[in-house]
Amino acid sequence: MSRQEFLVDIVIALPSDLPPERRAELVAAESARARELRAAGSIQRIWRRPGQTANVGVWVAESATELHDLISSLPLFPWMSVRVGALARHPLEDDHQ
Amino acid sequence: MSRQEFLVDIVIALPSDLPPERRAELVAAESARARELRAAGSIQRIWRRPGQTANVGVWVAESATELHDLISSLPLFPWMSVRVGALARHPLEDDHQ
Amino acid sequence: MSRQEFLVDIVIALPSDLPPERRAELVAAESARARELRAAGSIQRIWRRPGQTANVGVWVAESATELHDLISSLPLFPWMSVRVGALARHPLEDDHQ
Amino acid sequence: MSRQEFLVDIVIALPSDLPPERRAELVAAESARARELRAAGSIQRIWRRPGQTANVGVWVAESATELHDLISSLPLFPWMSVRVGALARHPLEDDHQ
Amino acid sequence: MSRQEFLVDIVIALPSDLPPERRAELVAAESARARELRAAGSIQRIWRRPGQTANVGVWVAESATELHDLISSLPLFPWMSVRVGALARHPLEDDHQ
Amino acid sequence: MSRQEFLVDIVIALPSDLPPERRAELVAAESARARELRAAGSIQRIWRRPGQTANVGVWVAESATELHDLISSLPLFPWMSVRVGALARHPLEDDHQ
Amino acid sequence: MSRQEFLVDIVIALPSDLPPERRAELVAAESARARELRAAGSIQRIWRRPGQTANVGVWVAESATELHDLISSLPLFPWMSVRVGALARHPLEDDHQ
Amino acid sequence: MSRQEFLVDIVIALPSDLPPERRAELVAAESARARELRAAGSIQRIWRRPGQTANVGVWVAESATELHDLISSLPLFPWMSVRVGALARHPLEDDHQ
Amino acid sequence: MSRQEFLVDIVIALPSDLPPERRAELVAAESARARELRAAGSIQRIWRRPGQTANVGVWVAESATELHDLISSLPLFPWMSVRVGALARHPLEDDHQ
Amino acid sequence: MSRQEFLVDIVIALPSDLPPERRAELVAAESARARELRAAGSIQRIWRRPGQTANVGVWVAESATELHDLISSLPLFPWMSVRVGALARHPLEDDHQ
Repeated sequence: MSRQEFLVDIVIALPSDLPPERRAELVAAESARARELRAAGSIQRIWRRPGQTANVGVWVAESATELHDLISSLPLFPWMSVRVGALARHPLEDDHQ
Repeated sequence: MSRQEFLVDIVIALPSDLPPERRAELVAAESARARELRAAGSIQRIWRRPGQTANVGVWVAESATELHDLISSLPLFPWMSVRVGALARHPLEDDHQ
Repeated sequence: MSRQEFLVDIVIALPSDLPPERRAELVAAESARARELRAAGSIQRIWRRPGQTANVGVWVAESATELHDLISSLPLFPWMSVRVGALARHPLEDDHQ
Repeated sequence: MSRQEFLVDIVIALPSDLPPERRAELVAAESARARELRAAGSIQRIWRRPGQTANVGVWVAESATELHDLISSLPLFPWMSVRVGALARHPLEDDHQ
Repeated sequence: MSRQEFLVDIVIALPSDLPPERRAELVAAESARARELRAAGSIQRIWRRPGQTANVGVWVAESATELHDLISSLPLFPWMSVRVGALARHPLEDDHQ
Repeated sequence: MSRQEFLVDIVIALPSDLPPERRAELVAAESARARELRAAGSIQRIWRRPGQTANVGVWVAESATELHDLISSLPLFPWMSVRVGALARHPLEDDHQ
Repeated sequence: MSRQEFLVDIVIALPSDLPPERRAELVAAESARARELRAAGSIQRIWRRPGQTANVGVWVAESATELHDLISSLPLFPWMSVRVGALARHPLEDDHQ
Repeated sequence: MSRQEFLVDIVIALPSDLPPERRAELVAAESARARELRAAGSIQRIWRRPGQTANVGVWVAESATELHDLISSLPLFPWMSVRVGALARHPLEDDHQ
Repeated sequence: MSRQEFLVDIVIALPSDLPPERRAELVAAESARARELRAAGSIQRIWRRPGQTANVGVWVAESATELHDLISSLPLFPWMSVRVGALARHPLEDDHQ
Repeated sequence: MSRQEFLVDIVIALPSDLPPERRAELVAAESARARELRAAGSIQRIWRRPGQTANVGVWVAESATELHDLISSLPLFPWMSVRVGALARHPLEDDHQ
């Protein structure tokens, strides 16, 4: 199955009046799940947008359908705004192999 | 009556503090109604926007008026942002018949 | 190889001062190539945006890389503005099978 | 056949270096064709956007496909940017009948 | 006094947690007031934007000041986002008289 | 006849390869016509947008139709992008009378 | 001290669930303060955007710093979205003196 | 370590129903932390956007990673919308040394 | 006369078919004029937007009118898109004095 | 010197009337220079935006200043629209080391 790369922009907006314990619980669960995705190679690279509760990453999945399942498996998914960009191979990366 | 095709973009934003039972009840009603529309041919094709609680679909109705009635009949309509694009026939589809 | 579906928005802006013969030649070549893509199943559905020299279509390709090759094979590609949306499967289409 | 109403926004940008005679010829042809569409009831109402070479109008056609044919029949079509909005019937217009 | 025509875009966003009785009361009052404006000729034509709790209409008033008073007299005004476009007469409508 | 006030935003983009004499001729004609409009009270106030070949002004006309005729009478009209905002009277200006 | 003119766009969005007495109290205080600014010449001209709880005005202040202090002195400031445009003198206003 | 300059746009939107004491406490903590960043040279220059609870500033940090840590250390960070622009040296500043 | 600070965003788009000598001549004149403005303190700070023929700077002038004269004195002004932001003093800069 | 990562979006718009030989010459020079940057590690990853003459890549440079020099060294730079996003380290990448 050829692995597709996607550029995934995620902005997280947790309500400011969320009880602190609930927030900590959610954030911990989020980190755990994210580490799983990272270890599985689904999240290949990820960076923070400086100054924002937002990240941009290179995700790998067999299809957009699988990508959706991976992203929506994140505990903070209900508070996310996500933009997915399809990525095509660039000839520059062929030469370099 | 000539059947019109429309491209319908729907983003659903349920409040994050909605009681779980109410949410489950609404989502179940939404799926049921959507299946009816799908079976009736009103929803011809539908896809998820990966990473979003949003979908894009090809809907069929006799007019924009009927399309409005169909979309507003969905239980999650109050929490939807909808964009409708009129679609004209493309000559490429004439050849293919 | 699982076939991916993409929503492809294409706006074509041919220069208004293009010599008529060159325009006719290009448009004919475009139609021919588009018919090939349609026959090959790469263009699954396609519609005109009413009032515009623009279309929106459901394309099928093994990957975004193949999709790029297909779109850039169109003779009018140099005059196109293209937006590609990745499409994930919607559960509503599972039921309907 | 039920007649559909559409809201059609047209911005016309003729190149400023178009030879005056060619401009006059095109504008005359445009007015003639527009009068035909007006007389045929295809253009039900039309207004100028003050300060712009642009208009907004209520067009009537059997479908978005027919609407496209009507708009693209205008001589100035190659220099137009067009936005079409589907219109659904408003209950307020039912009472008034 | 010359009657001015305006293109008025109204999006209505009632809070989803509004008590049902209050909602019904407001919507009834809105319909009543809208019918008055329609009967008085202030709302000349009005359509729904399919799939949205939004409408677009041709309003008539002596001035933008009077138009504001008319729109702000609608019971749902506090939950409205409104865009007003000034409309100038199009020569095509002169011929047709 | 009640005089309407409009907020008019004008951006002027003369082609950079316009022959200098033609540019000087146009700019002179523009200034002359603008002074007439200013003297007639059609242009009540006008300012430059700093750093831009653009201005914003308060124009007065009996209607949007007359406003269109005034703006389109300016020699540089073919190179203008214009946005017109309808203005309604503010109660604060009533007190001050 | 040279007086600067600024174009100030203000959109006011009071929460719809604000207790009526509190709303009335705030609106009264706002009008009072606005009249002071008007009398002091800080608000030179002001209009309503028809159909909106928004206004646009020509404000005068010695600097952007003073302008900020004037605007933020308005009781409804916490519910305002404000855009300030710097205004430069237009040669057309020189001739007219 | 070469010090990077960044242009940082911050809009602060504190909920209008925040208890006054909590607001005062947060604002005081914000000022204190900001003064530290200013004294440390992290905030090199900062201005208010007139009419807004927003500022724009020139920040200095070793990297975007450090910049994120500095911005997110501000007590009002949860209520901020931040945009960071990377800044490259301009040759004009070389001459001036 | 109090000196005002402005944030000035300039994007320069020279036509790609400009004869090389003409381009070199213009760019040289631009650098010379910019150095004058820098030396006079009108351009207080300036940075390049990385990857763009664009810069952002802190300019100082007595008014928006003077600012316009300074910017429009630049030889590349006809090929510039400029956005000017008024800047108000931030209390953080008062403490630091 | 710590190496900074940047997300760089590049859209290339070569004039459609560029002589074919000149186009081929430019494109060859572009590929050569890009391969150098790739080999030097300045371009760490790069993808095509499917359907567009545009790419997005992860670039590495010591600063935004060096990044500008690298990007502007590309032969097609005069026909590029470039957006640079600063990238901060994400804790998820710390764990994974």
